[in-house]
Formats: sequence, structure tokens, C-alpha cells
Amino acid sequence: MLPSTYDDQNCSVARALEIVGERWTILLVRDAMLGIRRFEDFQARLGVSRAVLSDRLGQLVEHGVMERVRYQRRPDRYEYTLTELGLELWPAIKALHEWGASLTGHTPPRQFRHRDCGGRPRAAVHCDKCGEELTVDDVVTFPTPGAPVSRIAVLEESVGHELARERPLLQPVRG
Amino acid sequence: MLPSTYDDQNCSVARALEIVGERWTILLVRDAMLGIRRFEDFQARLGVSRAVLSDRLGQLVEHGVMERVRYQRRPDRYEYTLTELGLELWPAIKALHEWGASLTGHTPPRQFRHRDCGGRPRAAVHCDKCGEELTVDDVVTFPTPGAPVSRIAVLEESVGHELARERPLLQPVRG
Repeated sequence: MLPSTYDDQNCSVARALEIVGERWTILLVRDAMLGIRRFEDFQARLGVSRAVLSDRLGQLVEHGVMERVRYQRRPDRYEYTLTELGLELWPAIKALHEWGASLTGHTPPRQFRHRDCGGRPRAAVHCDKCGEELTVDDVVTFPTPGAPVSRIAVLEESVGHELARERPLLQPVRG
Repeated sequence: MLPSTYDDQNCSVARALEIVGERWTILLVRDAMLGIRRFEDFQARLGVSRAVLSDRLGQLVEHGVMERVRYQRRPDRYEYTLTELGLELWPAIKALHEWGASLTGHTPPRQFRHRDCGGRPRAAVHCDKCGEELTVDDVVTFPTPGAPVSRIAVLEESVGHELARERPLLQPVRG
């Protein structure tokens, strides 16, 4: 059995996946970015049961990724829209889209363009200081000073020689 | 019951999630990017059973995301390294990391820096023509001409007015 939570994984990727790690959840966010707002439209696109969809949308609302907004009275009707936090998933969704689109044997069904100039949007990692595009090899990593020590950090001690060999740790510069 | 595959979802995000949509799978890719290579080290960090870990690593090898490489003979011992395809998940992993790191009540345990200049790596979507950073509102979308018509494309016809209202479709420019 897998552990059902990542509580002992004090990792920002794991924290993100606690909220949007379920596959259908990410596809719901994708659909919301495409302009889908209504329960019935989400359901028609994903083909999931009403119970599952209701649960997933409820979780997204609970975590502040979506908002449930009434758009009609008598009878009351609601739609789901992405919050600021939800919209901030855009680089992650676009990066997953590009990776999926690059797989052999797959024709991306949908194209994206910059509204203003017609260029192609592209997800990438850049340095906020020098602007260079960064691959994983251009990046070094070190523990946040003062962050809670997780089970993983302790385990990293035991394989630290390996990590250090593979990916030298940058020493924080002291001013 | 959820459908177990996304075969009728001809979508590049769904295609990506077929391979790396399982949460532990993404965390395996994360760990590989941190320099972890050996079965025992993956297992110690994730705390999953040998059977589950073996299955997930096998799937990643099968899909060309990781390679299983012998590093010792008598007895034979193997390690797992990311392929080019696996390394291309970096922007998606970093974007998920940043989103998780931004959540309230969470202290990112790990910092990243550009090896050369010490700046902070940041995942974002930029236009490949004008270079502008693009939010989801800056982007328009349209079906790939000639792409297989999916169940979703047919369904989009029925909610097309909604999509068109929310997110005007860019007409491809004809030269």
C-alpha cells in the first residue's frame, strides 16, 4: 500500500501534488483554462461520474484553486472559475502540454498562439538574474536554512555523498 | 468508476499524464533530477514498497523516460538515469515546485540557484516570437488542422459558443 498523504515529504512538488496530483484534477484545471465553467460541461468533456466530478471540484474549491459562483437565481445555478491561485498553475499545465505534445505517435489536437503577435507560447525555466534559459544541469540546490527537517532531509544525509557527486551544492553567499 | 485510460481524450496534457500522472511517478522523476539513481535510495526517500517502486520504474523505462544502466558486474547492479525525454520534464517539475512553494503554510525545504550567477530559476511561459511573458489570458487556441477528431472536439462543438465567448479563437493567418 502507498501512503495516502505526503505529510512526511516536506517537498514543494509533493505539496502541489497533494492538491492537483490526481490526474482528473489536472484535466479539470486544463478545461477551466479553456473556458469551461459549468458542471455539465466538465462532465461531458471528462466522462466521469457526477459523484467523482463533484468530489474533485469540491476539493479544488476547498483548496482555493477554484471558486463556485452563482450565476442565476430561481433556480440557483452555479459555475466554477479559477482563482488567482488556480491561474498560477498555467506554466505547469503548459509545460505538461508541451511534453505530451512532443511524444512520438501523438498529434497535438490543439494549437496555442500569443493573442497579440501570433507567436507560440513556450514553457521554460529562466534565471531571474541573468535571463539565461536553464536546464536541470545549470541549477544547484541546497536546503532552505531553518526549514523544518523532514524525513527526506535525514535520508539525504545518508546518500549525501551521491547527491554531492552528482550535483554540487551551492554555498549561500554571505554578505 | 473512472475510465482507466485517456484514449478518447486526444489531448497533449492527458497524454503526458498517462505516463507521469501518477503522483509517485512524478516524485521519482523529481528525485532522479536531484541525483538519486539507485533503487534503494528511491525507496528510502519515497517509502513505497519494492513492488510498487519496481512497477513505477519499469513503466518509466518502458516509456523512455528513464534508462536502466548496469554499473557493476558480479553481482550485476543497475541504476536508473533520466533520458533526454525525462530531462525535458524539468520545466513541468519546476513549475509544480514553484506553485507548491507558493502555497500558504508551506516552507519550501529546498532552494535552487543558477550555478553560474546565483540567480533564481523561475518557470514561466514566454512567446517565442516577441519574448513577452504570457498568462493564460494572453493566449488563444484553435484545433490543429487535420488532427484526428476526438470525442472532446465533438463535444466542444456543443459548448462552442461558451468557449468562443470566453476565449476568442485565433484564425490562422494565411500567407
